[in-house]
Amino acid sequence: MDTLKMKLQDVIDSRMDEFYDYLRLDSVSTQDRKIPETVEYVKGMLEKTGGEVQVLDDLGGNPVVYGFFPAGKGGNKDKTLLFYNHYDVQPEDPIDEWESAPFEPTVKDDILYCRGVADNKANLMVRLNAIQALLDSEEGLSCNVKFLIEGEEENGSPSLGGYLEKYADLFKSDACIWEFGGKDEDENYVIEAGIKGMAYFDLYVESADVDIHSSIGAVVDNAAWRLTHALASLRNADNQVLVEGFYDDITPPTDFEKEVVARKPFDEEKTKELYGLKHPLITKDLEWTPNEALAFYPTMTICGFISGYTGPGSKTVLPRAASAKLDCRIVPGQDPEKIHKLIRTHLDKNGFEDIKLDLIKAQKAFRSDLKNNFVDIVVESAKKAYGEGTDVVLSPNNAGTGPMYNFDKYLNLPVLSSGCGWANSKAHAPNESVRLKDFFEGTAHMAYLLQDFGK
Amino acid sequence: MDTLKMKLQDVIDSRMDEFYDYLRLDSVSTQDRKIPETVEYVKGMLEKTGGEVQVLDDLGGNPVVYGFFPAGKGGNKDKTLLFYNHYDVQPEDPIDEWESAPFEPTVKDDILYCRGVADNKANLMVRLNAIQALLDSEEGLSCNVKFLIEGEEENGSPSLGGYLEKYADLFKSDACIWEFGGKDEDENYVIEAGIKGMAYFDLYVESADVDIHSSIGAVVDNAAWRLTHALASLRNADNQVLVEGFYDDITPPTDFEKEVVARKPFDEEKTKELYGLKHPLITKDLEWTPNEALAFYPTMTICGFISGYTGPGSKTVLPRAASAKLDCRIVPGQDPEKIHKLIRTHLDKNGFEDIKLDLIKAQKAFRSDLKNNFVDIVVESAKKAYGEGTDVVLSPNNAGTGPMYNFDKYLNLPVLSSGCGWANSKAHAPNESVRLKDFFEGTAHMAYLLQDFGK
Repeated sequence: MDTLKMKLQDVIDSRMDEFYDYLRLDSVSTQDRKIPETVEYVKGMLEKTGGEVQVLDDLGGNPVVYGFFPAGKGGNKDKTLLFYNHYDVQPEDPIDEWESAPFEPTVKDDILYCRGVADNKANLMVRLNAIQALLDSEEGLSCNVKFLIEGEEENGSPSLGGYLEKYADLFKSDACIWEFGGKDEDENYVIEAGIKGMAYFDLYVESADVDIHSSIGAVVDNAAWRLTHALASLRNADNQVLVEGFYDDITPPTDFEKEVVARKPFDEEKTKELYGLKHPLITKDLEWTPNEALAFYPTMTICGFISGYTGPGSKTVLPRAASAKLDCRIVPGQDPEKIHKLIRTHLDKNGFEDIKLDLIKAQKAFRSDLKNNFVDIVVESAKKAYGEGTDVVLSPNNAGTGPMYNFDKYLNLPVLSSGCGWANSKAHAPNESVRLKDFFEGTAHMAYLLQDFGK
Repeated sequence: MDTLKMKLQDVIDSRMDEFYDYLRLDSVSTQDRKIPETVEYVKGMLEKTGGEVQVLDDLGGNPVVYGFFPAGKGGNKDKTLLFYNHYDVQPEDPIDEWESAPFEPTVKDDILYCRGVADNKANLMVRLNAIQALLDSEEGLSCNVKFLIEGEEENGSPSLGGYLEKYADLFKSDACIWEFGGKDEDENYVIEAGIKGMAYFDLYVESADVDIHSSIGAVVDNAAWRLTHALASLRNADNQVLVEGFYDDITPPTDFEKEVVARKPFDEEKTKELYGLKHPLITKDLEWTPNEALAFYPTMTICGFISGYTGPGSKTVLPRAASAKLDCRIVPGQDPEKIHKLIRTHLDKNGFEDIKLDLIKAQKAFRSDLKNNFVDIVVESAKKAYGEGTDVVLSPNNAGTGPMYNFDKYLNLPVLSSGCGWANSKAHAPNESVRLKDFFEGTAHMAYLLQDFGK
């Protein structure tokens, strides 16, 4: 192990208790839990590392934490790397399926379990540990470093655009490292150069003022049936969205992007095993490969629904109301507002005018130029950190969602991912985790990047 | 008011506190609440009225209470009228929608609210009050009276058939008055001569071992979509069941039954107003009238479903599991087990082999012979009780469900309904109620019937 890596391990060990306390804060933004406490805690973590901190909260929403670390004596004061993170986490339910307390960091077989550890608290700690190791050494940072740490990412980042617009000068940087990243099912370290957007909807329908004895079902419809038929009309069982115009605005991937995607391995059997899938992948009638589907094409997902009686035994009612949550992951070229209009029109045309459709989260997609020099720097520093046992793989586009589009719009810079997640991190699901080995290697990646970026 | 009616009012008043205590017992059979206490209480009510009581519990399930009152001195010892009641009630949820505590009897504007009052505790009280008034008078009962009061009606009466089979001699009677009955939207007093059956199903599907981040929805299906498509395939938006063979076994209604149904008024506007319906009735492409649909044709109803995240805000997951409750009201000729097989075959044929389908409640339908002399006795005694302001209307078939089929099978007798419900009784829904006026008139009907039946 080289000197830097030994130093990193020391720093990691010395800040583990601090990290655990950060994980214990159940900062669930969609439920407004522990937000002020977490902001205060994050501010303290940055200050302890030696950063200048500002808490921005003049535009509403959960506060945005700004951090700044200047380049060292031998560093390049004209280059700035921006780290994007978020301090909020997903809700912990279904709580029954956790094998340890969701908000108590628990290590088992060198794996650290906690809600929010992979998405995205470990990545903040990784970056702070890397900075501290370099600041403690003689060389210092090769560039300026800024942080933007928001608290509404799991809620669609509704305030982030406003803060980036108003504070564009404060956050001005040359490139950005995204909040997440990590290894895939084949233990490749994947660097993402883009991200999908999102249109998330609440659907709601009422059929009556009261629940009615189900015998009347001979002549009276109910909300559960109406919602079922409306949902079934939106997407077929083979994963094809049936809403007219849904696919029209997709920016076609370039040949180079397709080539990069084609290089990425995809192992269907491993994916099935990983999640315990009960059915084949739903890609049979699509014109694109699974990897292309994940990178370049939009999805439509029922994230949940509820209506009527769902307890034990039976209750015979016509439910008066029904609701569902629908999530569309959209791609460059698509606009959430337009998707909203298209689905509304589809429902109206099919006799579902009465079904309420509210767009509760909207986010455009973004993809960096893969030929930008920043791509090479991130890839090469990753190779140094991960060594020969791990392939470093570039991906034009992650299948998940984040507010990357705003960084392009207001700061106009390339954005790449880096993080310490793994294929079984279970972000958004019970038993979310990070492996301690990845936590170390992710720290090394950031340290090498911070050595090289200013050169 | 004649002497009998005055006497009835006295008896009603004297037993109102006892009735309220009966209502306070939250005897929810599907949740196993207060069953032994309620059995004991019912036994006490019968004994207080002067009946001989046996509690039958040797065949499992909730106990069946048997009661016997012999014909009076001038009465006909060779004729026996059987009253069927149940002491169990539906669950009270959604509890938020109750305007008074669900299990606290509350009178407002001469309407008595409580879970179980209409279905079916008031009808037991009505019958006991009528018997007591006659026993207190010189004439006594014109016939023997028996009671069968079970505790699993709201759970599909799984044990009743067994008790009727074993105790057929004990319950042997000449005719039976059903547990419920009452007035429709137009204030007609409706006497039902039959009842639908039921096949009630739990549906359940799993798509993975874990909830998955919804970005993977580009290639991986989820349980919510699978259940949606499966349900949508079973019945169309116009109320037509699409399961092959579903309608095949229906016993066609006779011309006389059709004629009786055609006499029954049906007021679409009143039905819509009563429940606050948001949509037109779903009868547009059916070959039968609304009243025929209610009496003679089967239904398929989603009583509830649940999957994934249904809380506030958003959560982006592929739900690993989804479940639904499906209720088919079936008619004479149809068999619940066969309906089960037909739906299973339909699901398998349409690619939904993985969807579990459990028949959790099964009940055949029954319709009495409308030309039986008992029909006239019940109709004529009702006319005396309700007077000229109320039309007494015969219906071959109620749209609801009950274990009437077993009474035909083991006791071989005609069964007619009588009760003190009204169109806004909200059986199975919040704010269930009975009007005090109907409670009195229902008592009068039973008293006149008990004067006439033995003659």
